[in-house]
Amino acid sequence: MRILVIHGPNLNLLGEREPEVYGSTTLGEIDERLRKRAEELGFEITTFQSNHEGEIVDRIAEARGGADAIIINPGAYTHTSVAIRDALAAVGLPTVEVHLSNIYAREAFRHTSLVAPVVTGQISGFGANSYLLALEAISLSGGGR
Amino acid sequence: MRILVIHGPNLNLLGEREPEVYGSTTLGEIDERLRKRAEELGFEITTFQSNHEGEIVDRIAEARGGADAIIINPGAYTHTSVAIRDALAAVGLPTVEVHLSNIYAREAFRHTSLVAPVVTGQISGFGANSYLLALEAISLSGGGR
Amino acid sequence: MRILVIHGPNLNLLGEREPEVYGSTTLGEIDERLRKRAEELGFEITTFQSNHEGEIVDRIAEARGGADAIIINPGAYTHTSVAIRDALAAVGLPTVEVHLSNIYAREAFRHTSLVAPVVTGQISGFGANSYLLALEAISLSGGGR
Amino acid sequence: MRILVIHGPNLNLLGEREPEVYGSTTLGEIDERLRKRAEELGFEITTFQSNHEGEIVDRIAEARGGADAIIINPGAYTHTSVAIRDALAAVGLPTVEVHLSNIYAREAFRHTSLVAPVVTGQISGFGANSYLLALEAISLSGGGR
Amino acid sequence: MRILVIHGPNLNLLGEREPEVYGSTTLGEIDERLRKRAEELGFEITTFQSNHEGEIVDRIAEARGGADAIIINPGAYTHTSVAIRDALAAVGLPTVEVHLSNIYAREAFRHTSLVAPVVTGQISGFGANSYLLALEAISLSGGGR
Amino acid sequence: MRILVIHGPNLNLLGEREPEVYGSTTLGEIDERLRKRAEELGFEITTFQSNHEGEIVDRIAEARGGADAIIINPGAYTHTSVAIRDALAAVGLPTVEVHLSNIYAREAFRHTSLVAPVVTGQISGFGANSYLLALEAISLSGGGR
Amino acid sequence: MRILVIHGPNLNLLGEREPEVYGSTTLGEIDERLRKRAEELGFEITTFQSNHEGEIVDRIAEARGGADAIIINPGAYTHTSVAIRDALAAVGLPTVEVHLSNIYAREAFRHTSLVAPVVTGQISGFGANSYLLALEAISLSGGGR
Amino acid sequence: MRILVIHGPNLNLLGEREPEVYGSTTLGEIDERLRKRAEELGFEITTFQSNHEGEIVDRIAEARGGADAIIINPGAYTHTSVAIRDALAAVGLPTVEVHLSNIYAREAFRHTSLVAPVVTGQISGFGANSYLLALEAISLSGGGR
Amino acid sequence: MRILVIHGPNLNLLGEREPEVYGSTTLGEIDERLRKRAEELGFEITTFQSNHEGEIVDRIAEARGGADAIIINPGAYTHTSVAIRDALAAVGLPTVEVHLSNIYAREAFRHTSLVAPVVTGQISGFGANSYLLALEAISLSGGGR
Amino acid sequence: MRILVIHGPNLNLLGEREPEVYGSTTLGEIDERLRKRAEELGFEITTFQSNHEGEIVDRIAEARGGADAIIINPGAYTHTSVAIRDALAAVGLPTVEVHLSNIYAREAFRHTSLVAPVVTGQISGFGANSYLLALEAISLSGGGR
Amino acid sequence: MRILVIHGPNLNLLGEREPEVYGSTTLGEIDERLRKRAEELGFEITTFQSNHEGEIVDRIAEARGGADAIIINPGAYTHTSVAIRDALAAVGLPTVEVHLSNIYAREAFRHTSLVAPVVTGQISGFGANSYLLALEAISLSGGGR
Amino acid sequence: MRILVIHGPNLNLLGEREPEVYGSTTLGEIDERLRKRAEELGFEITTFQSNHEGEIVDRIAEARGGADAIIINPGAYTHTSVAIRDALAAVGLPTVEVHLSNIYAREAFRHTSLVAPVVTGQISGFGANSYLLALEAISLSGGGR
Repeated sequence: MRILVIHGPNLNLLGEREPEVYGSTTLGEIDERLRKRAEELGFEITTFQSNHEGEIVDRIAEARGGADAIIINPGAYTHTSVAIRDALAAVGLPTVEVHLSNIYAREAFRHTSLVAPVVTGQISGFGANSYLLALEAISLSGGGR
Repeated sequence: MRILVIHGPNLNLLGEREPEVYGSTTLGEIDERLRKRAEELGFEITTFQSNHEGEIVDRIAEARGGADAIIINPGAYTHTSVAIRDALAAVGLPTVEVHLSNIYAREAFRHTSLVAPVVTGQISGFGANSYLLALEAISLSGGGR
Repeated sequence: MRILVIHGPNLNLLGEREPEVYGSTTLGEIDERLRKRAEELGFEITTFQSNHEGEIVDRIAEARGGADAIIINPGAYTHTSVAIRDALAAVGLPTVEVHLSNIYAREAFRHTSLVAPVVTGQISGFGANSYLLALEAISLSGGGR
Repeated sequence: MRILVIHGPNLNLLGEREPEVYGSTTLGEIDERLRKRAEELGFEITTFQSNHEGEIVDRIAEARGGADAIIINPGAYTHTSVAIRDALAAVGLPTVEVHLSNIYAREAFRHTSLVAPVVTGQISGFGANSYLLALEAISLSGGGR
Repeated sequence: MRILVIHGPNLNLLGEREPEVYGSTTLGEIDERLRKRAEELGFEITTFQSNHEGEIVDRIAEARGGADAIIINPGAYTHTSVAIRDALAAVGLPTVEVHLSNIYAREAFRHTSLVAPVVTGQISGFGANSYLLALEAISLSGGGR
Repeated sequence: MRILVIHGPNLNLLGEREPEVYGSTTLGEIDERLRKRAEELGFEITTFQSNHEGEIVDRIAEARGGADAIIINPGAYTHTSVAIRDALAAVGLPTVEVHLSNIYAREAFRHTSLVAPVVTGQISGFGANSYLLALEAISLSGGGR
Repeated sequence: MRILVIHGPNLNLLGEREPEVYGSTTLGEIDERLRKRAEELGFEITTFQSNHEGEIVDRIAEARGGADAIIINPGAYTHTSVAIRDALAAVGLPTVEVHLSNIYAREAFRHTSLVAPVVTGQISGFGANSYLLALEAISLSGGGR
Repeated sequence: MRILVIHGPNLNLLGEREPEVYGSTTLGEIDERLRKRAEELGFEITTFQSNHEGEIVDRIAEARGGADAIIINPGAYTHTSVAIRDALAAVGLPTVEVHLSNIYAREAFRHTSLVAPVVTGQISGFGANSYLLALEAISLSGGGR
Repeated sequence: MRILVIHGPNLNLLGEREPEVYGSTTLGEIDERLRKRAEELGFEITTFQSNHEGEIVDRIAEARGGADAIIINPGAYTHTSVAIRDALAAVGLPTVEVHLSNIYAREAFRHTSLVAPVVTGQISGFGANSYLLALEAISLSGGGR
Repeated sequence: MRILVIHGPNLNLLGEREPEVYGSTTLGEIDERLRKRAEELGFEITTFQSNHEGEIVDRIAEARGGADAIIINPGAYTHTSVAIRDALAAVGLPTVEVHLSNIYAREAFRHTSLVAPVVTGQISGFGANSYLLALEAISLSGGGR
Repeated sequence: MRILVIHGPNLNLLGEREPEVYGSTTLGEIDERLRKRAEELGFEITTFQSNHEGEIVDRIAEARGGADAIIINPGAYTHTSVAIRDALAAVGLPTVEVHLSNIYAREAFRHTSLVAPVVTGQISGFGANSYLLALEAISLSGGGR
Repeated sequence: MRILVIHGPNLNLLGEREPEVYGSTTLGEIDERLRKRAEELGFEITTFQSNHEGEIVDRIAEARGGADAIIINPGAYTHTSVAIRDALAAVGLPTVEVHLSNIYAREAFRHTSLVAPVVTGQISGFGANSYLLALEAISLSGGGR
């Protein structure tokens, strides 16, 4: 089971950026925790961060054949990117959408996810643990959609 | 760590009702799986199902002092109950909102949760596993909010 | 052919409450007329009134196996209850939604029925006769959906 | 008791047009069933079909004096014709609006009837039987508004 | 003059629940103050609290004949209950709607009261004193609508 | 100066139809008064009534060359006809839109005129006099746009 | 018959201000033409211009007893003043609302008149002639509402 | 305790204007009743009426230092004046918003108060008594915000 | 391959009407160009123009059996006619919707086509060439849907 | 170069009113700083403050001929005054709209400026400096529009 | 005549991605067919695909001087990119917007094209043929805008 | 004091692109003028242009530590980019948003800036001078937020 983890825009600033909203864990630490847990579950994991909508679309397209499931935190693109939505729908892999913060407790424009209707499920509000729960979700479901 | 699990309206029909949307697991089986996993995690668990908004509000109020965290699938009341929202905000316990189906891939009126802004986090779309992931979420966070 | 008739909130006040809107027939008289006509049509009939959304949801769930068709006047819950809608969808019986008054000639918030999209058909505006027409509708269609 | 039955646009195609939505009964067969039932009830019946909004308005105006009640399926004009609404309000006869399909279970723009606020009542979703139920509605009410 | 006081959902938690919004007075203390003032005014008073929409509807229906005026704080049901609105309209008693907090200074969904259009008047924002002012309002108007 | 007067749908019922809204003058009487006043002003007048949107569009097209100004009461088509709007814009004659009733004091859907943005001016609310004022308007402006 | 003519904000600039929208006639010239025509019709006329909403409200209140009809061009206050609307409704005199330009052919926010629902009728789009037509309207109707 | 009472536009017409909506008490009588009750409560009272938004803003600004609380019936400005809202927020005194009629039972545009979010509380629907209740509210709260 | 070309309202004025929007080609010239190109492609072509919604609906119904594809420029009815939409859906022939002007570069109400969701494809903005491109579209696709 | 500076409602309270939003500089100090900088730039400056919409409209009208450019902080009237917008458009002078606070970071109703579409440019969010920047803007552009 | 063809995001997946929506032709095959037809028409053609909004904007800017017309399928960016719209408006070349699927028969958010108002025309719904029709459109119009 | 100036999409075309909207100054000339003025003010300045949302987000992130203030003209991304908004909020530097044209006098979709709520202030409508005014704004405020 190969899993692609995609971190969207501004997540490279994690740990420094608005810690009262996003927590103090850095992206490197999250990736480390994910790698460790993936190993325990017998998963192979690749992580990827980009601030570019187009690079994320490219990366999802490459996942065809190269991955069995996707974990994606689309960050700001959650609310504005039809291109990422279409890419996810096109590759058709089981996908878990994650958010560090509870997006429904924030500004109104963050309550709508363009991506949500085409993913398997969504996990939001548990900080860095949202990613780990996504791994568990894939594990529990046996990786099938 | 004592956890209260609340199942909202029509979840008593689980397994029989529209299996293409909600899966074929019954509520009894879900409660069984939750109990088993809770035991492993060292949690004490109480489950409760009701079709009555008022009974759910009553039950949440009683949780003050009697529980350390709440897992709630508000079912149809997700979209219509300010009373349950207010009850959750009033007791102020760490709370995980779960949904069996991906509510964002269904009718537009199911895309809005009145409860989401006052819970810790939300997990939706993983069938019966949504509940188990909620348990993991509480375990990972040490039960604190 | 067993038919369950459900009267929603405030219909217990029928005959006394705003007679210029709802007419002067009482609920008892309506039930009597329904029973007489059902008998002529060879139908078995059960009637039920409640002001509680949860009790109506409970009653619909119990109809599985115990009834072949439902006639429901959801009253005020027509416009606010996703729970009753879900319950009707879950049991999947042929269902006729009735209203005493023409809901489309009243306040704007009464123009939308959350229940209508999951029922077989809707009859509104004929006073107590709306119920009798529902019986005829079931009879004409042979009771099948 | 003289009853005018008006069939709106595209109803001449009934039986051929999208049978999964509108059923396989032709308009001729519906008129035949209406005539038979009207006879039993002692009613005199005239039926009229037109694809022209203006002709329907003309026909309603002529009903003044020539009919005691109207049964109308305005078809597509249900959602767009203020002219037909005004004509019905102008003649002031008891009127039953009927629809073959459950318009509330279809596209959003079919959920609003411009005609509904000025008719006696509405019956929708029972296929060809919707017309017969309209006859019963008139019969039950003694034809008065 | 007999007055029925209805406290809606979560008001049983008063004094404990979010004191920065609702104050630290308990419901018992409010009822006590109401009883004292009612006595001074020569009113007979009954108080009732429920988290159940249906029970509140039931209780209003029973007020016909048993009370001369109603004071109601519908709590969360203010914004979602057509059933309570219809019940109040049906019994037709002079009714004062009260709110502890200034609902217009809170979340947007709390700015709309479904109940307000059918009551005599509304008092909001004065904490526990809102109830006492409702008593004064009834007293000043001589209890008539 | 040749003036075409167009009366829209249901205006043939004038004098009989809802006299509390539209007055008791008949269309014939209005035409008579218009003819008399036109004569005084030295205008040639043609009047035309139709319940058919298409006939009104046809008639406007024919006005090219045959008329110097148009007075139109589009009746119900005021609110629904882009075709009549386009026809008026196409012929480009000075046009006065008239309404018997004050359309802004009626149902919300009557507050919007699709025709208004392409006419010279609008006169509403003066009963049959609205037409006479339209004649005066053309006379005062010398018939130019 | 005494008539009060009220000119709203910025109408003092008439003739100079955006002549392509409002024409080149000055307010003095309009008042002169109105006075002449009023004399012919046997009316007594008073004209008043103000840029102050409050002064216009004051002046309308004074019209009680001092005038038999009002002609008002509320200018920009057409779209924003509930106070002027309430003043007109309070004095209850026959009132004609006039506009120089066709407000329905301009920016969207000018399409709604808060005043229109409480006046007798509205005349817009005929430049300075709109005022003269208002005089004719009062004359034709005999000044009654 | 010095209290400033502000009466907004058209309230000078009270008693004469639409008595079925606003009652037959005049503003003078209201002020008299307020003065009497204020005296009993040991309050010093100043009353002020204006149809001018700007004068009301001026008067509120002057209240800084000169008053301890404000009672305001903003009349039509309730729904349109951000300036009055800002003035009240700027002086920061305890303020009670009052309305004679139940504004929530009237036209939709009267359901929104721009002022409400910055006042202490709101009292509406009790006729002239709304003002007296505002006095009681200030008295009960000890005049503090 | 037999093709029915339908020209909607006001297209008879083409070449004369607002040439800056619609160009200077007349409808006769368009039909001539279409006939020539159809001949080259081996298609049989029939053209039809009407200002009447009902006639267009009639003509579409007659196309069943008489045509293999439809090219339609619904003109103003694009934005208002559910009846034409339903007729096209009912006959189920491959259909190309064409517009002379780019409807998306015009007034907002022209941006929505009620017909578009039931046609094969849409071509807009190429003047008279839009029709020729529709012919090519049918030719390229072999006429199948 | 003569410049008219207009301060809208409540700006007279500057320095005292909500200093956390508007800063602690008084209006007198702002005027002083403006006068000093204007002198350096060789501009003649007049400042004016009013809480009255009508007075501001009057003052703008008087600017015709008396000023070469306008700097205006319309305060609360930014969001509600079509009259001020029309006045600015009528005089047609180069105009800079300024705001002390960043209006886009405040309540939603403050995000819309009715004045913005008719001014040269807008500067908001720099406290008292917003006014000085407006002076620079006029200086940089040579005062032309 | 040099033509630039731009394929937006996810079009690289064509032929594999959701073939029931987008058909089974690959992008390479479409480019091949375009090149062949361009050659017949005597056009020089360049094709370009990117998933990056910025790259598409860059490429459009480079078209100034390097191309005489643009054919663009903006894919998902159709609905979200103001940047591409502005780029197209800035270069000012004749542009045809194409879509493989009928975007008006899909999800509501696909019904709005931000690009459409600035292009010459739009062709949607003919699969790969939409591109060929765009070539014909340019050929028919002689390439001029 | 180090200042980062960011020019968004299509600003590389400045001077050539739609000069009637954006003026004839090129981006190079603007940068030159900025550099000169910065020197006078003792500021260090870096300028950056990109059509790529992701590159702009990258560049803002790099500003942490490398700049003391940001001047940004987000161009088309003003209205669509949550990613740029989040980046600006994350780095937390004093930021001035500038626009060449008055965005409030253009199409409705340009009236909303997603970026505005997180910047210090906004300057729009002064052409190339908008940038210079931003420099002055930073200078006047001493560069602090």
